[in-house]
Amino acid sequence: MFPRPQLDSGSQVPLYRQLHVQLKDWIESGRLAQGQRLPSTREMAGLLGLNRTTVSAAYSLLESERLIQGRVGRGSFVIGEAPSGTPGMDWDQLLDGPERLPAPLAQSSDAAISFATSRPSAQFFPLDEVRLSCDEVLSSRQAATILQLGSPSGYAPLREYLLAEGKRSGTVHPHDDVLVTNGCQQGLDLVGRVLVRPGDTVLVEDPIYPGVKHLMARAGARVVGVPVGPQGIDTELLGRALARERPRLVVVTPSFHNPTGTTIPAASRQLVLARAREAGAVVVENDSYGELRYEGEAVPPLKQLDESGDTVLLRSFSKVAFPGLRVGWITAPRALIARLAEAKQLADLHTDQLSQAVLLRFAESGRLAAHKLRILAAGAQCLAAVLDSCDGHLPAGARFTRPQGGMNLWVRLPEPLDASELLSKAEREGVTYLPGRYFEVTHHEPGGLRLSFAGLAPDQIRAGVAVLGKVFSAELERVRALRRFEPVPAMV
Amino acid sequence: MFPRPQLDSGSQVPLYRQLHVQLKDWIESGRLAQGQRLPSTREMAGLLGLNRTTVSAAYSLLESERLIQGRVGRGSFVIGEAPSGTPGMDWDQLLDGPERLPAPLAQSSDAAISFATSRPSAQFFPLDEVRLSCDEVLSSRQAATILQLGSPSGYAPLREYLLAEGKRSGTVHPHDDVLVTNGCQQGLDLVGRVLVRPGDTVLVEDPIYPGVKHLMARAGARVVGVPVGPQGIDTELLGRALARERPRLVVVTPSFHNPTGTTIPAASRQLVLARAREAGAVVVENDSYGELRYEGEAVPPLKQLDESGDTVLLRSFSKVAFPGLRVGWITAPRALIARLAEAKQLADLHTDQLSQAVLLRFAESGRLAAHKLRILAAGAQCLAAVLDSCDGHLPAGARFTRPQGGMNLWVRLPEPLDASELLSKAEREGVTYLPGRYFEVTHHEPGGLRLSFAGLAPDQIRAGVAVLGKVFSAELERVRALRRFEPVPAMV
Repeated sequence: MFPRPQLDSGSQVPLYRQLHVQLKDWIESGRLAQGQRLPSTREMAGLLGLNRTTVSAAYSLLESERLIQGRVGRGSFVIGEAPSGTPGMDWDQLLDGPERLPAPLAQSSDAAISFATSRPSAQFFPLDEVRLSCDEVLSSRQAATILQLGSPSGYAPLREYLLAEGKRSGTVHPHDDVLVTNGCQQGLDLVGRVLVRPGDTVLVEDPIYPGVKHLMARAGARVVGVPVGPQGIDTELLGRALARERPRLVVVTPSFHNPTGTTIPAASRQLVLARAREAGAVVVENDSYGELRYEGEAVPPLKQLDESGDTVLLRSFSKVAFPGLRVGWITAPRALIARLAEAKQLADLHTDQLSQAVLLRFAESGRLAAHKLRILAAGAQCLAAVLDSCDGHLPAGARFTRPQGGMNLWVRLPEPLDASELLSKAEREGVTYLPGRYFEVTHHEPGGLRLSFAGLAPDQIRAGVAVLGKVFSAELERVRALRRFEPVPAMV
Repeated sequence: MFPRPQLDSGSQVPLYRQLHVQLKDWIESGRLAQGQRLPSTREMAGLLGLNRTTVSAAYSLLESERLIQGRVGRGSFVIGEAPSGTPGMDWDQLLDGPERLPAPLAQSSDAAISFATSRPSAQFFPLDEVRLSCDEVLSSRQAATILQLGSPSGYAPLREYLLAEGKRSGTVHPHDDVLVTNGCQQGLDLVGRVLVRPGDTVLVEDPIYPGVKHLMARAGARVVGVPVGPQGIDTELLGRALARERPRLVVVTPSFHNPTGTTIPAASRQLVLARAREAGAVVVENDSYGELRYEGEAVPPLKQLDESGDTVLLRSFSKVAFPGLRVGWITAPRALIARLAEAKQLADLHTDQLSQAVLLRFAESGRLAAHKLRILAAGAQCLAAVLDSCDGHLPAGARFTRPQGGMNLWVRLPEPLDASELLSKAEREGVTYLPGRYFEVTHHEPGGLRLSFAGLAPDQIRAGVAVLGKVFSAELERVRALRRFEPVPAMV
């Protein structure tokens, strides 16, 4: 959330002065709020690829001008001008709760080629077909009903469609029901609210999309990571963690996991279900990407394999259609859905009905299926481009996953490269990505980074990975050259 | 949430048999989920206007058929048929958390005239203008951006519009920012998540819209009610409660309060702010209805009167436009908005962008202003109709509030009438409403009931209140007649 200062290393003005001027301007213009915490000097130095002393010099100037204030053990906070009028609330003290969320380090808007966001390419959005779907919905006899207050469970015709589709594909069990949510993120949030009590343990993949980790932590859970291997979550380690931790939930993304792009093979999926069942843990299957398979054979979702029907399946239209329309759904046993619907009602009454109706029309008219064919074809090209480029450009010793679908691929740079430290160098060359630190639970992997490839054209992917390869290779050479000159201790 | 059994008191089949057959059917068809709790015999009796022994007889039959199971101190639960396949999770035990939300007792769909829902009349929705706004948005150069992943803070052009409007009207202070939410309900939810810690006290009006009460209770708050008088929350009692309870928050609806329709006069509003400030409590102003004034002089919102700028203002397009599009916003100090935006991101990433853009277009094109004029004119007629009818038809001794806007009016029936008990009689005559019990915090007022008048035509209002007047008057006569025959104890 903290904006990224833009420094010009070619300028005559010293870097600490540039940083000082930029932060001062942001404080005085109100872009940085009173009480807002600045990144620590270490974080800021890492973010900008600067020396810590450079950052400290800028902060000291701000402190001398009484624009920020350091607090022992807590960091530096914006003071700014005093509020006008009556002396107000001490928001800083009042908001002294959980740590702020870490901002993703990459700022996609600054770089020409951004591998930072796991989202579809807007280039393929069929705007005319969406407009047509919208028009059909608002010309229909349901138009007034759609604009009127709706049901927490979701727009009834959409729920019927989702239930019918789920029965057809085997993901809806006889005792299941469906609840419409604002995408998978709200699905996770509602599950957290209903099933997680403070102190409960929740198992997640490590690395993991941070929206899962922070959400469960704020729900009061102890979040325990299980390492991800080349075939998704390590089922051997998962089994041990289940037996040891007796978690309330295990949240997994079996297909095209975010951030690694890995998939649990069909043969291991029953094992995941069996181990979770033995441990009495609820399996939450986060299936945002499952439909985006560009090559290889389809693998059934856990929900379909689970004969007990207890798996909680989260899906959405966000990746296969449009993330700006916030519509997803939960498939789960009826007793749980009833509770989730209550939580949904307290959270926001119900999901937006215009988007529910438009997506239903988009699906029922066959437009979604046609769109899906187009994005699967485009995704296959993106995937081939990113795999080829990684093969061709990443330095020797780099490893990367080989997803067959989804939007993400995971790179492990050879030691001693640090993907966080190298980010600012890559951004100076016009390319950005998210370093592994952003996704880690407990396992720190300095060389890890995520490449989100689905939002880019194949040419951009090739150009971007070529730049990254150059930056990483140059750094590797630099470090190795330095090492050659390191004094070798005398043998004594 | 529990469906309302339909019994026919004119039938030859005894009522306990009718109830038994209906519940059995619902369990076997899966309409009632395994593990679902039945209303207690007392609740069910109240709901249906039956004797408790009638309900007990039906429940006993279900228990003997092993369709439900009674648990000491916890009620009766659906057993139903065993799930097929592998033995599954014990959802009942797993979901043994907070009490289920009480279902609103009235089922609007069953009655010809429903005063039960506080929502606008769909009759006035300008469908062509909404369709046009939608088409303009999806034909614009922003169309792809709108369908793409957005910002947790909201669609930037809408935020700019809301900030500019707020500055113009004096509700945006120099240190304020705006966050787009899924209506006021999510505004409340996010405020609860960020500001309420378990054990904190939250003051609310009593009676209150239950979405406020349950939300704060689930956030771990101790919810304390402050009585509402004819001029909104009783400021004298509020001052005392603030001094005594030192709450974290006080949530108030100063204009056209739900459920009572009352408004805090301009002169008392500064007092509310001053007392809250002295007590260090954050004022949350729930202003869903403020713009719907049909008569009398406008009263500035607390936010506008608050020189400190600390008041947290919740508004939405739901009541003045379309509740099916879930778009509202929070105006609050920047430091708080930054935290709320984080909570929003974890809750559901961001609010639906199609609806944000459509409502912005609807507003900027002048269509919202034109629509508002139409619904203010219609609202004035509804208000006149409900006030006239209450004057003319409610039994002597009944009192009711005289709102000047909004959607709700509060009736207090003379003793010993009980609005919950009378509901089934009214529904048999084709009219429904919500009894006061649904809104109470601690103060039980058996004669209280809410009439939501804005969704009905004036003729329906008049016909509906006439029916209610007849039902209430007949009951009053019946009870008084009974009393006349009650044995008078001998004087000794």
